[in-house]
Amino acid sequence: MGIDPGLNCTGVGIVRAWPGRVEHVFHGVLRTDSKRPLPERLGVICAGLREIVGEYKPEISAVEDVFQSVNIKSAMLLGQTRGAIIATLLSCGMPVNEYTALQVKKSVVGYGKADKEQVRHMVEVLLGIKMGKSPLDASDALAVAVCLGLEITGRRY
Amino acid sequence: MGIDPGLNCTGVGIVRAWPGRVEHVFHGVLRTDSKRPLPERLGVICAGLREIVGEYKPEISAVEDVFQSVNIKSAMLLGQTRGAIIATLLSCGMPVNEYTALQVKKSVVGYGKADKEQVRHMVEVLLGIKMGKSPLDASDALAVAVCLGLEITGRRY
Repeated sequence: MGIDPGLNCTGVGIVRAWPGRVEHVFHGVLRTDSKRPLPERLGVICAGLREIVGEYKPEISAVEDVFQSVNIKSAMLLGQTRGAIIATLLSCGMPVNEYTALQVKKSVVGYGKADKEQVRHMVEVLLGIKMGKSPLDASDALAVAVCLGLEITGRRY
Repeated sequence: MGIDPGLNCTGVGIVRAWPGRVEHVFHGVLRTDSKRPLPERLGVICAGLREIVGEYKPEISAVEDVFQSVNIKSAMLLGQTRGAIIATLLSCGMPVNEYTALQVKKSVVGYGKADKEQVRHMVEVLLGIKMGKSPLDASDALAVAVCLGLEITGRRY
């Protein structure tokens, strides 16, 4: 299970991985209402995550590690979202890994400065799916899941 | 239950409040090892919180809202700690409130720019306790709990 954390929109992707093979299981996004108080918004993300975990029962997770933030306030908001997600995954009994965007892009696209469109393209190619109009957060999350799957199974494309 | 979030040291304080009366129940800190990976450190804080909640069964909580951070990196770390704490409290079924340090100090000391020593002094006076060598994070957390208790019971000292 890969997560691309964001307070407005968190991407969630799940893949099944074997040595030499990665298969698409699920992707989607969790959105929150920016007019609601922060704890309520974090609660929406956590509840949504629990539901997805309950349905697909992933065994291991990775959350994208985001360093770049335009300012302290947005860093605090993103940080809180990420922390709430990690706490929720841990409370579901899942090991939580961390990858930087650079690591994910290098693993999935082979190029650390790839843009989100390139990431989506490679996710579609590797998983043999078409993501259509799904938000880029969903393909980013699948990329995190693919990166984790490749690392666990020891296979590099 | 009041929380003063910090990745190295999170303060936890619990009081019982009636109109016109606030009583000390518990205070302590949760420390994490800075050499361990972030998810593990957040897990330590969340597990410690769950244990305290399980033992004292507080009905409502408040987490201090911290805006000032020296840089983006420390804002991200503090944010993640705060988010993990909020997620854990919510998952325990507790409503989560937020107070800024300014609100807490105004409520407890009557002066928004009070320092941590003054906050500790007023916490000791209001609750009739001596905190001895407990970390200031513990008195800050009790101050958050007192602030919440005073607001709920409608009493201002």
